[in-house]
Formats: sequence, structure tokens, C-alpha cells
Amino acid sequence: MPTKQYIEENSRRFLDELIELLKIPSVSADPAFKEDVFRAADYVKNSLIDAGADHAEICATEGYPIVYGEKIVDKKAPTVLVYGHYDVQPADPYELWDSSPFEPVIRKTDRHPEGAIFARGAADDKGQFYMHVKAFEAMLSSGELNCNVKFMIEGEEEVGSGNLDSFVKNNQEKLKADVVLISDTSMISLEHPSVTVGLRGLAYLQVEVTGPNKDLHSGTFGGAVANPINVLCRMIASLHDENQQVTVPGFYDKVEEYSENYRRQLNKAPFDENDFKKKLDIAETYGEKGYTTIERVGIRPTLDVNGIWGGYTGEGAKTVLPSKAYAKISMRLVPDQDHKEIALLFEQHLKKIAPPAVSIKVMPHHGGQAAVIPTDSIGYKAAEAAIQEAFGKKAIPTREGGSIPITALFQKVLKLDPILLGFGLDTDAIHSPNEHYGVKNYFKGIETIALFFKHFHALSS
Amino acid sequence: MPTKQYIEENSRRFLDELIELLKIPSVSADPAFKEDVFRAADYVKNSLIDAGADHAEICATEGYPIVYGEKIVDKKAPTVLVYGHYDVQPADPYELWDSSPFEPVIRKTDRHPEGAIFARGAADDKGQFYMHVKAFEAMLSSGELNCNVKFMIEGEEEVGSGNLDSFVKNNQEKLKADVVLISDTSMISLEHPSVTVGLRGLAYLQVEVTGPNKDLHSGTFGGAVANPINVLCRMIASLHDENQQVTVPGFYDKVEEYSENYRRQLNKAPFDENDFKKKLDIAETYGEKGYTTIERVGIRPTLDVNGIWGGYTGEGAKTVLPSKAYAKISMRLVPDQDHKEIALLFEQHLKKIAPPAVSIKVMPHHGGQAAVIPTDSIGYKAAEAAIQEAFGKKAIPTREGGSIPITALFQKVLKLDPILLGFGLDTDAIHSPNEHYGVKNYFKGIETIALFFKHFHALSS
Repeated sequence: MPTKQYIEENSRRFLDELIELLKIPSVSADPAFKEDVFRAADYVKNSLIDAGADHAEICATEGYPIVYGEKIVDKKAPTVLVYGHYDVQPADPYELWDSSPFEPVIRKTDRHPEGAIFARGAADDKGQFYMHVKAFEAMLSSGELNCNVKFMIEGEEEVGSGNLDSFVKNNQEKLKADVVLISDTSMISLEHPSVTVGLRGLAYLQVEVTGPNKDLHSGTFGGAVANPINVLCRMIASLHDENQQVTVPGFYDKVEEYSENYRRQLNKAPFDENDFKKKLDIAETYGEKGYTTIERVGIRPTLDVNGIWGGYTGEGAKTVLPSKAYAKISMRLVPDQDHKEIALLFEQHLKKIAPPAVSIKVMPHHGGQAAVIPTDSIGYKAAEAAIQEAFGKKAIPTREGGSIPITALFQKVLKLDPILLGFGLDTDAIHSPNEHYGVKNYFKGIETIALFFKHFHALSS
Repeated sequence: MPTKQYIEENSRRFLDELIELLKIPSVSADPAFKEDVFRAADYVKNSLIDAGADHAEICATEGYPIVYGEKIVDKKAPTVLVYGHYDVQPADPYELWDSSPFEPVIRKTDRHPEGAIFARGAADDKGQFYMHVKAFEAMLSSGELNCNVKFMIEGEEEVGSGNLDSFVKNNQEKLKADVVLISDTSMISLEHPSVTVGLRGLAYLQVEVTGPNKDLHSGTFGGAVANPINVLCRMIASLHDENQQVTVPGFYDKVEEYSENYRRQLNKAPFDENDFKKKLDIAETYGEKGYTTIERVGIRPTLDVNGIWGGYTGEGAKTVLPSKAYAKISMRLVPDQDHKEIALLFEQHLKKIAPPAVSIKVMPHHGGQAAVIPTDSIGYKAAEAAIQEAFGKKAIPTREGGSIPITALFQKVLKLDPILLGFGLDTDAIHSPNEHYGVKNYFKGIETIALFFKHFHALSS
């Protein structure tokens, strides 16, 4: 039976298998979930074998393992390397989830009248990389698989892919391919299918400000001793100027200024500012002066506090002047901004602006480079053709605000431009409570991925 | 036997009884300790009866009860009203305590070579008000008690004494006295005994900033949506100007500017800035320009963030753009600044400076008025005489940065200037981990309090 029919006839099982995977709380950031992360790796390996891989293995690293699997149909055929990740973001705050993050449920929503799977990792990235496993199975069963496939599914994407770099460098022969295919991004909508051609980089740091050597009574000492929270807030506030530009010296040195023409093209993507505000319940968007919302998340770097804490945060009132205050701060970077250099500039700047009445520590968490994908490759053309056939529409190239550090790694080490063929939506609430992934997106994704293989083979011949 | 001898012979028991009281975790700010707070009230009532009170009772309020007890020796004798509180501050962060906060231990320190009791509430205020109970017992046993005594020990001082106001107003006849005596402050040192003649007021509020209606991915949305943490930090930073003056409009309108002469007198109190910095491990003190450390905590109002939280605060990194950020902010006030007016000015100002891209809530927690105590009253003179006899030194009048809201209440409703005869030290770590109270301070306090009664009776005749 043809691939499309096979997908339809096995849809219930395809969904059930994903749900089983989503039940494993593979939170890589929190050591409490260590066993679960390993369990998820096992699940992925077994699913590759079950789908028909020649072999699959769990490759140990200094952190969580990378699952590798492959199917070589013909040594002369083009090879597609699929990348994905089986680890997920922490699920807290749990109390804001309408259903338990690791007990997946399917519910209908306005945007998903055919239902969406609610679970941590549903869209980022279990639901998305698993489409590849199922597209592979379907093509193999239908006899329509005419490209070789290699899978590399890692378990540390949400904590910076710390061990992927050396794995890729040490396994260049094994990973040899003609294109890298990744589904870990979103499209504008099922009505406006798009392909991501730009991703931002990331520099993520933690700041610790220490004032007095112990918590003090804010009455007895208040006004005479630097309060580390007050100081931290002032330092954070100073990191943006009145135009919402980042004030770290050198931050914009390597940021590309795009032509009016390029910006005009970028802003043609369907985007409804009012709808965007309404969905987020905000009266105004907010960001760097002189840029549109699409530009602010697509081609401009940013600085956001991702977490802050210090002093008394319990019920009621405690009149404490705390010893310490902390913040997690990340910067989204654009191409040519080197994440290590930016992290260093940030650290130097923070140490410079800290008043002598406090001491300060800046600890880098992780980072990744930004990436831009060319649109004239065989891979991109195959993605366009697959979308045209599956959706009956021309793919819109978009630049996304998120980061997939591996993209730059593939470009540098394997000399391959990855194709970012994602099927999420910006309403999927990834990294947030109530993350979900549309059931229709899942199946449309499987179908499109199979078509990508068909067109990639045809265009490569 | 004379009072002093009675104190010495019963010292072991006096200490043990305090330790039993300190074992009760009567944290009024946290509902989890509700039963313990009531248990502490029982303990106080029983201790008054055991010490020899004519009667003692637990007076219910809408919150935690007020313990009242009295001993009328002679209707014509002067009456001393003793105020204290049996509730304590929350003990967290627990991990910073060297011993469990509710398992009191006596340890020697550099400043307390004869030992100090380490426990939450040791100095604030269980160890201090209990000196009065024991001084009372000692005077009664020795036959030297010649003033009437009334005790009013409350359980909500650490959360703003919300029900004391109406209790005092409704029981003016019962509470009728010639002086109010309070030990809930500190002295400079046992070598430099001092009496507090000024206290700051307090306005304590909680701020909640809401950006988007849910946590967002900081990559997908970062740069286009107001981040409530960034916004909160900027708002907090703007609350001080470059001279570290509070920028809330109207904040200084009622702040008294003291004469050069007054400030010179105030700065004569023994204070070693280098020692102060060394004890707190800070390179510099920090505060309002143009004022000394003594002035900054004594006669100037301040604004401190007591707690801040928002976003991801766990291990590792999470690239979240949070929906909400929170801060607990308090202002220490000086006489004539009305805490309700200041809280309102603060709320209005914060709402004004919040950018339209976020919404903001400001919730008042509690407050209290500042107070100044005259030094020409019989009560103050009795305190001076008691200190002279007990320490062989003249008491130094000081102004303290903390707040005892009841002070202003007594002045207003009972028309009595309280005498703030405290025996704590500024190193006692009240409201902090490892709170402690010197064993010598405890017994020296009991002795001095008994002498106060003697001199108050003599000076009143």
C-alpha cells in the first residue's frame, strides 16, 4: 500500500506510541529525572529498531546518551541525516498545567479543532522527531523509501547540547550525509506553511550578587548597607537603554543591518499584530525601537531575564535585607555574534557596573551560535516541493527567534545546511505550562516528511 | 533574699524556661505554624501565673491572641505596663542555620564569651520579654515589688500587629498605666548601654507584574514582548536616584531635617565604621548621599526590596519569558511620615511608571508609624538610673532603624511614651539565620528591669 495510506491506516498506533514516549519525564536540566532521561533513550532506540532500522545503538557521552540508528537502502542513494532530541524542558510551574505534564491527554482547542496532545515535549521535540520515525516506517513498509536514513537523537538539547560537538566531530564518517533534516521549529500555520531559514543563537548566564555576609534586619541595617536585590535590579535595568537596545559594550558590533528590501520581504510573512496581542493578553508589544515584531524576534538580538530570586519569597512579610540575589539571564543572538564572545562581554560589563559595596559572580550556563540557511540548496527545494504537494501552497521562508545550537555545528563540522522543516505553531506553549502539539500537525508532518524524501531523491538524481 | 540574689540563685531555671519557650515555632507569618503560635500564647499565660500574677488570660482577637496578666500590689502605687511579643519571624532559609532554629543551643562567640542562646526569637522578642516575667517573679519573691505590673504580650508583631490597635482602644481602662516598658530593641553594647529614643515606621507592600498571560519561550517571543522581570527590575531601579534618595513623589515631604547640632550629638554614639564593614564582610557601606551610617538608619527613611521572584529559579537553565514577576518592598519611615499615606504614594507611583505593555498589582502587607521618645520623662529617668546602677555608666540615647508600630499606638491612644529598654545587640542576627541572644544580656536585662521598677517607684513618689 502507498505510504500515505499506510500512515492513515496506522494513525491510531502512531499516536499511541508518541503518547507512551511523552509519559517519560526526560527533563535533562534536573538531575532528579536522570533515570527517566535514560529510559527515554531506550524507548527511542527500540522505536527505531521496530520501525525497521538496520541497527540502532545508544551512544554514551559524558552526559546523556545520543541515540543513533540507520537504514542503508542503497549505498549510491542520497542520505538524509535526521536530528532531534528526546529530552524536554522542566515542566514547572506544575500548578499552571490544566493536566499533568507527563500524563498526555488529547483536547480540542480553537486552533486545533481536531485535537492537540497536551504534554511536556509534545511539540518540543518528541512529537516532532517522532514524525520522522513514523515516516520512515511508512516509507519502508510501502517500499517507497529510496534514500538512506540516519537518525541522531540526542538527550541534552535543552541544556545546551554539551556533548554533541565532540560526538559529531568524532563520528564524521558515520554521520556522512547529503542533507540534515530537523523538525524542531514551528510554521506560521497549517494554512501558511513555512520553513525556517534563520535561527538565533543563545548565551545563557547566571548572576549572583552578594551584599552582607548574612541576611540582615531591614530596619536595623536598611539604608546603610547595599541591598543585593536593589543592586541586581539596577544592574539589570541598566542593560537596556531607552530604545530597548542592549547596553553591553560591543554587543551590536557584529550584528548585521539588513537592507530595506530584505526587511520588506521579511515583513510580508502573514502576521496579525492584534491577534498576537490578543492571544497573549497584552495591551502592547514591546521591544527595540525601529523594528517590527517579526524583525525583533527574527533578525535582532535580545536580552531577557529568565529567572530572578532573592530574599523572602514566602507567604506574608519578612523584613529581611538579604545577603544574596540571583538572576538567570539569556541573550538571543543573530548570525556573526559569537555566543562565547558575547558571554564574555556580558560578564566583563556586569563586573564593571557592580558597585564596590557588593561582590558579584557570573557563571555561564550554555550557549549556541545563530544560523542562517540558504534557500537555493537541493534540500530546501525538496522541502518546498514536499510542502507544495502536501499543502498545495508555496512554503514561506521565515526567521525564527529560538535557537538550535546544533544547526551551526552541522554547518561547521559536516558542511551541511540543515533543513528546518518544523510543524509546530507559535501557540504550542513550548517551554510553558500546557505545551501541546496538534494531532493534525503530527500527521501532516509525517506525510510531508515522506514527501521530502521522495523529492530529495528526485532532485538529487 | 534580695532580688539580685534571687535572680542569681534561680538563673539555671530562668534560662531553661526561656529555652522551652524558644522551642515553640510560633511563626505568625506562616499559617503552617498556627497551632504553635497558640501554644506559645498558652506558655506565656502559664508563665505569668507561675511567676505570681493575680490573674492572666488569653484574649482572643481576629488573629492570634494577646496574653494579658497583672499584679496589683497597691492601687495607689505607680503602674508599669509591659509590652512584648511571643511570635517570631520565619526561620528560613533553614540551611543557613548552624543549629536548628527551634532547638535552642548555647554556644560561645567572640562577642559572647559567656555564651549566647541560638534560636529563632532568642532576641526578638522571646528572650527579651521573658526577662520581664522573671524580673517580676524575682521582685515578688524578694518582697521588693512596689509598682503594679500589667503584661500585654501579643502574637502578631512580626506581621504588623493587625489586631492590637482595636484591643488597646477597647481596653483603655484595663491597660491604664503610668509608663509602658518594652524590651524589643538593642543597645550599643554591654560596655555602652543605651536606650532607644527613636524608631522608624514601616510600609510593606507586594508588587505583582504581569506580562503575557502565560510563560513563553524566550527565543520565539524574546524581544517582542515585555518581560515582566525586566520591567520589574527597571521599576525597582528607578525608585532610587543617583544620590540613593527614594524617587516616589512626596516621599520626603514630611521628613524632618535635623539641625547640625542634633546630628553632631547623634554621631557621637560609639560606632566603628570599619568594624561594622568587617562584621558584614562588605567593602563599603552604601546609602543616601550626605548622611552617615548612624543617620542613614536613625533619622532617614529608606526603601528596600525584601524579596523578589519570577521565572525559572531551579537548577540549570530554562529559556522562559515568564508571565509574572513579584517583589516584596518595604520602606522604613521617620516621624511624621504616615505609613498609610506613603503606601498610597508608592502604589500610585508604581502604577504610573509601569509601561502599558504590562499590568500591575500593588498589595499593602502592613505598616506602622515611626516614633520619637522624649528623654525628660520619669520613665526615661528611671531607665537612666537603672542602667547607671546596673552598668555603672550613663545610658546613651540612640535612634534605631527598626520599627515597633505599637510605640506610636501607645503614644496616641494611651498617651504614654513607652520606654524602649532593650538589651539586644546589632550582631544578634534577628530576622536572620543564627539569631541569638547573649546569656549575660539576658541576666543583665533581668537585673536592670528590676532596678527600673525600683527607680520608677522612687521618682514617681
